Amino acid sequence: MSSTANSSSQTSPTRHKIVVCTDLGPTLPLLTERHDIDVVSWNEPRRCDRAWMLQNAVGASGLVVCFQNIVDREVVDAAGPNLRVVSTISVGYEHINLKVMADHGIQVGYTPDILTDAVADSAVMLALMATRRAGQSYTFVKDNQWPTFHWTPFAFCGPQISTTSFSPTRTVGFLGFGRIAHAVLKRLSAFGVTHCIYTPRPGAPDQSARDENLRSTLNLVSVAPVDLETLARKSDVLFLLAPGGEATRHLIDESFLRLMRPTSVLVNNGRGSVVDSTALAKALKEGWIWGAGLDVVEEEPQVGPEHLLVKEPKCVVLPHIGSAALETREEMARLTARNVLAGVLGERLPVGLDYSRLI
Amino acid sequence: MSSTANSSSQTSPTRHKIVVCTDLGPTLPLLTERHDIDVVSWNEPRRCDRAWMLQNAVGASGLVVCFQNIVDREVVDAAGPNLRVVSTISVGYEHINLKVMADHGIQVGYTPDILTDAVADSAVMLALMATRRAGQSYTFVKDNQWPTFHWTPFAFCGPQISTTSFSPTRTVGFLGFGRIAHAVLKRLSAFGVTHCIYTPRPGAPDQSARDENLRSTLNLVSVAPVDLETLARKSDVLFLLAPGGEATRHLIDESFLRLMRPTSVLVNNGRGSVVDSTALAKALKEGWIWGAGLDVVEEEPQVGPEHLLVKEPKCVVLPHIGSAALETREEMARLTARNVLAGVLGERLPVGLDYSRLI
Repeated sequence: MSSTANSSSQTSPTRHKIVVCTDLGPTLPLLTERHDIDVVSWNEPRRCDRAWMLQNAVGASGLVVCFQNIVDREVVDAAGPNLRVVSTISVGYEHINLKVMADHGIQVGYTPDILTDAVADSAVMLALMATRRAGQSYTFVKDNQWPTFHWTPFAFCGPQISTTSFSPTRTVGFLGFGRIAHAVLKRLSAFGVTHCIYTPRPGAPDQSARDENLRSTLNLVSVAPVDLETLARKSDVLFLLAPGGEATRHLIDESFLRLMRPTSVLVNNGRGSVVDSTALAKALKEGWIWGAGLDVVEEEPQVGPEHLLVKEPKCVVLPHIGSAALETREEMARLTARNVLAGVLGERLPVGLDYSRLI
Repeated sequence: MSSTANSSSQTSPTRHKIVVCTDLGPTLPLLTERHDIDVVSWNEPRRCDRAWMLQNAVGASGLVVCFQNIVDREVVDAAGPNLRVVSTISVGYEHINLKVMADHGIQVGYTPDILTDAVADSAVMLALMATRRAGQSYTFVKDNQWPTFHWTPFAFCGPQISTTSFSPTRTVGFLGFGRIAHAVLKRLSAFGVTHCIYTPRPGAPDQSARDENLRSTLNLVSVAPVDLETLARKSDVLFLLAPGGEATRHLIDESFLRLMRPTSVLVNNGRGSVVDSTALAKALKEGWIWGAGLDVVEEEPQVGPEHLLVKEPKCVVLPHIGSAALETREEMARLTARNVLAGVLGERLPVGLDYSRLI
């Protein structure tokens, strides 16, 4: 059995059917405990079958999906005329055909702006792990090397993110300087970071007032836009938080990496495609930079022990878990449930996508 | 050859001999580039031989050591009457017999207070790694499991250290509330942590003015001393930064751990002996707490893949590298060199140990 229903299997006209194709965790009862709604949910420990989705969508008023579930004309046709809302537990909506939604007047709920803090935490963690050689030293213990460790004052040393009286300046750089970047900068200001540089989007308006506000609020020496070359040359820690797509593809390539410092690290919590994996592996192997912390890799999920970057000792690769914090994912699930509920009841969605400007 | 000398092997009475038993890294030239000093240094990639040390100490005015090099009466006798200073690249001085130093009027240099920020960075890293399951997910990629990863909204989730509008309070606890703890608290204040609790040393004076100052400076809701039971019950992240010794041995035992929350984590950057390893492994296995990040373990360095804590998936064990930051270790080496130099020249040490109160 790969489906469950919380009440009668016959859906009467006055009742609503919601098909849940992903895991809403502890927030599922927001749907299942209502007496006016039938919930059918995918419960297998693998990605929801397309066939199951098409079969169970019949007669549904609402669909709950994640980025893995393609919502196209076929799904909408299968559901039939009751379908009022598609609620996705994601920031992105590339898996939903917005034109079809518009044609049928189906609302789309999504979950932006919730994961800022969770991703910022993860970015700081990766920056610390990449500088302080956490991957190498974690493996060292697992590999039974501690008992015969030749300790010296410089064993396992890495660059220090925090400033001190004897090392008083540090520059963090950002490729992509939005909400998450600001949250990272706030955290690092408490480590004593002094300078912030970032590359503005092409054609972006002047942000000197915002930058001055950030500088003074976070007690920094400077916050300033720079060109890509300066970003490479000056960043002690460089955070990649740019969107994907052709405009940013392989912005971090061999020529960029050759400009970086041998004690600098790269952290990518944005999109894997921004970095040329082969160039980064070369940079790490040849010591152009100190290390890297990657939550995303261009080739993901086809990334295993034979991947060039996983093989690099000073590269920490995590499986795209930047926003995987319990509180954040629960809030995303809660909002997803509230969105679908509002949709089937004909109410305004708490956070609906205004797709009219997108299609 | 396991020794080098920078000038003539004959030490004339007007010259000083310094024996360096550890690695001073890039600061060694502070000694070797002087023309009034002969430097003999251990250069093998293993711990300095006791026999080498005794043999080369003969006639030395200064010794440079680390915590691995025991400096006792035998060493002092071997050196002879020229010996004026022992300079250790460490905060601790348990490896130096202070009574013998006093008897011979030998000064002792050491390196306290430099590593505060490096250790605080490491503690924050371990807290993030323990909550956000960095050890497990790092191993997951290495083990080639990403390509077949069944993603769900709650896969690899862990508790979030930072607060958000939908999860607005967080309590950090400290066992040992000195300089390093304050530096950790400062960093976490930028993650939105709201409450700080700590256990005061027995008989410590009232610190309410200091606590109020910390609270207002770091924009927290409260900073307060509590008893051990409250520390266990209320801490979302508990940092162990207490000194070792009998007074703190196994303070973190089964009864303490049973009081903690299933979403809380423990971070130990202090002394391994504070934690009962068997009890902590049980707590992790049975889910009394969420995870642990350990830079120190009671059994170190006899800690390998068969150790109870290394075997626990939600435990991150690193090989005592809390202060292993380049900038910090270089400053420690620089101070160690300056201490020994001042000592052999008969000057006041930049940072000397006042051992009169310790023997």
